[in-house]
Amino acid sequence: MSEGHPVVLGVGLHPFGRFPERTIDDLAREAALAALSDAGIEFKDVQAGYVGRVGGAGPPVGVGMRLFAELGQHGIPITNIEMACGSSSRAIMLAEDAIRAGSVDVAMVLGVEKMERGMLRVGGADDVSYASMMGLNVMPAAYAMMAQRHMSEFGTRPEHFAQVSVKSHRNAVHNPNAQYRTAITLEEVMASRMVCEPLTLYQCCPTSDGASAVILASSAFARRHTTGPVRLRGSAGVSPVYTRGRESQGEGPTSLAAERAYRRAGVGPSDVHVTQVHDAFTPGEVLTIEELGYVPRGEGGPFVWEGGTEITGRAPVNTDGGLLSRGHPMGATGGAMVTEVVRQLRGQAGERQVAGACVGLVQNAGIGGVNVLIFER
Amino acid sequence: MSEGHPVVLGVGLHPFGRFPERTIDDLAREAALAALSDAGIEFKDVQAGYVGRVGGAGPPVGVGMRLFAELGQHGIPITNIEMACGSSSRAIMLAEDAIRAGSVDVAMVLGVEKMERGMLRVGGADDVSYASMMGLNVMPAAYAMMAQRHMSEFGTRPEHFAQVSVKSHRNAVHNPNAQYRTAITLEEVMASRMVCEPLTLYQCCPTSDGASAVILASSAFARRHTTGPVRLRGSAGVSPVYTRGRESQGEGPTSLAAERAYRRAGVGPSDVHVTQVHDAFTPGEVLTIEELGYVPRGEGGPFVWEGGTEITGRAPVNTDGGLLSRGHPMGATGGAMVTEVVRQLRGQAGERQVAGACVGLVQNAGIGGVNVLIFER
Repeated sequence: MSEGHPVVLGVGLHPFGRFPERTIDDLAREAALAALSDAGIEFKDVQAGYVGRVGGAGPPVGVGMRLFAELGQHGIPITNIEMACGSSSRAIMLAEDAIRAGSVDVAMVLGVEKMERGMLRVGGADDVSYASMMGLNVMPAAYAMMAQRHMSEFGTRPEHFAQVSVKSHRNAVHNPNAQYRTAITLEEVMASRMVCEPLTLYQCCPTSDGASAVILASSAFARRHTTGPVRLRGSAGVSPVYTRGRESQGEGPTSLAAERAYRRAGVGPSDVHVTQVHDAFTPGEVLTIEELGYVPRGEGGPFVWEGGTEITGRAPVNTDGGLLSRGHPMGATGGAMVTEVVRQLRGQAGERQVAGACVGLVQNAGIGGVNVLIFER
Repeated sequence: MSEGHPVVLGVGLHPFGRFPERTIDDLAREAALAALSDAGIEFKDVQAGYVGRVGGAGPPVGVGMRLFAELGQHGIPITNIEMACGSSSRAIMLAEDAIRAGSVDVAMVLGVEKMERGMLRVGGADDVSYASMMGLNVMPAAYAMMAQRHMSEFGTRPEHFAQVSVKSHRNAVHNPNAQYRTAITLEEVMASRMVCEPLTLYQCCPTSDGASAVILASSAFARRHTTGPVRLRGSAGVSPVYTRGRESQGEGPTSLAAERAYRRAGVGPSDVHVTQVHDAFTPGEVLTIEELGYVPRGEGGPFVWEGGTEITGRAPVNTDGGLLSRGHPMGATGGAMVTEVVRQLRGQAGERQVAGACVGLVQNAGIGGVNVLIFER
């Protein structure tokens, strides 16, 4: 029933930051209306709704119905998706399935979050697993351990990781939707409070509020609304794999998800012009560019250090500031990554534009797995 | 990319009831292994996992990863779905999309819940909407108001509703997975404590623990594993529709979902041999059989009263005891409904078998909408 790849018809954001006076309804509405306007369609054209949100106190029962009801009650199926920090990219993949299956022509994915401090704990409050008791339910610790392993195995230096944050903040200066829009120096990053060796405070993403909206449409529908469609060429989601001792041979979830997404999209790592990776902590960029195949294993640190992931580098990464500087309202992050890639591929990224970007990749990780999505204009 | 309708290859349950000594992991594992055994496949054959769960205290972050990890970590995408009491039927629809889209050949949907008393509140803990403040966030009140309207409009009597519970309990006697397996009389139902006029205690579903698992496969894959496939012919999900004053003309969510599902499945109400409806409270059956088109508007009460929805009636409903007697562990309910319909269509329902059942329908409602799924053997 599929006729060509689904098209990203519209994207929109509520700025990321801290908005104590606003409800999630306010955030979601602003993003949704921006995406509808960007797509040039009305809400009545939307045939399915998906909401990516992790939620706060208590189960987020029925939140999707409430968020969409304000846009208009015309009876579309609405589904709430949770995959922690990867919620909205996974929701976009479900919308992709629905369109490819011929179930709907137009779907809207809302990602939204108002975060409380310390809300995220791997496996939920009732997780009493060994990994959790060993401290792996605290995210900075998990990333720090990956960094330590990388340093030990490949000689990566603490400043390689810190440089990710320097570049991230510099990019975010040009992003009006970013939470932090002030450049910082390597010295400032290195001298900020130590959170978990080697990660200092400025190498950790902030607690954020924000929303994203992505409208996906079938080729046939999109043809009537855009002449320069950005297409979702392929995607893959991978949950943790039993790879004891083989992670360093490229068998981790991101490598597997990338391999499958490349195959489905019919492209390879060297074809990608702009990338958004899950830099909740700085090792996220160093390790992921290796897993995506942009650089050989172990060379991520020097590559970042030498500017390879700058907007003008060989493999521009997190042009909008990434999680570290744009912010990371968990449920909204995947949609924000897609929003940036779409704007880059359309040539609408202003001062952070990657020249001639035609193929873009999103890598969004959450508790439960990794999603890789590849777009092309 | 679709080649024929997806097939339900396997179904399995953990018995419904109260299991304070068991974790959700225990419940989910038992249902999953039962479904794999029923399907005659191994977990390594499963290419995608979906989990329907509402959750308890705190966000249910990453629960799906944990539940599936125990079955084997081979890197499949795992997605957590929440649509309150309709979670697992919606998850089955997402698996249906993935198979029709050609994304995967085999998907497993786990539905699981351990319920706390009073955990469900429409719109979440932060819901301050008008409807919520007026008491509509308390489910017995919502159903009681629907019953009152029906009584006022069509002359339906309190005992018509009570009879639903009598039949439900009688059917559950023959269901080893049901929470309540004792028949009760009309007098007992009517004389039980009043909860919300006209609904007495025995007209309200219990608080339950339990799990369901449903394995969906593409036609091509299923051909190698079964010679008498039960197919998912069509489904539709509908969120609340703005229908002020028109509900009684059949424009509510169930009517719309049924209309769409019938169209997709190529059948009509008179073709359905066995039905599972969302009888969280007894009006759920009386009103739904009207909305599904089994009887004209207003005739649901007398139809139930005269035995029309008995196993031997014209339109058998909730042959396994339904939510009222089988139990209603929210995330698991949709999958349990599908399990019963599949067993009926395969002729495996034992003493509760509907003779010659070939077409079955599931109507599962949750905060956020209604799902209708139609199966055929």
